[in-house]
Amino acid sequence: MFGSWVPAGTSWENYVKEIQTVERDEKSGDLYILMIFKNGKKSRVKNHRVRSRCPQRLLDFYEAHLSV
Amino acid sequence: MFGSWVPAGTSWENYVKEIQTVERDEKSGDLYILMIFKNGKKSRVKNHRVRSRCPQRLLDFYEAHLSV
Repeated sequence: MFGSWVPAGTSWENYVKEIQTVERDEKSGDLYILMIFKNGKKSRVKNHRVRSRCPQRLLDFYEAHLSV
Repeated sequence: MFGSWVPAGTSWENYVKEIQTVERDEKSGDLYILMIFKNGKKSRVKNHRVRSRCPQRLLDFYEAHLSV
């Protein structure tokens, strides 16, 4: 269901519809972001790419899930 | 103990020693970041300024406190 499509440009800030969740890969321990783009594509993307391409959308996600 | 000093430039990424915590202001409901700069200054800064000046350091903080 979640593929690997991502936008071509260096900034994805305006292409993200929603970050659905953040998960840790069981084998590698790496973080992956499950996200939905405005074109309807659902992708599972390595954390470091999301941090560099759309840091503000990732910050939105973390703030929305704060417990404070 | 936490003041309001911040670096002069538009990027603080290399001036941050540590983000200590994120807290919600009881009256306004706004988020504030309690952070320590490399010069030893401890500051309480509005979330939106930290997001724009050092998003990568703020992402570091959230990742370090993930429960996944």
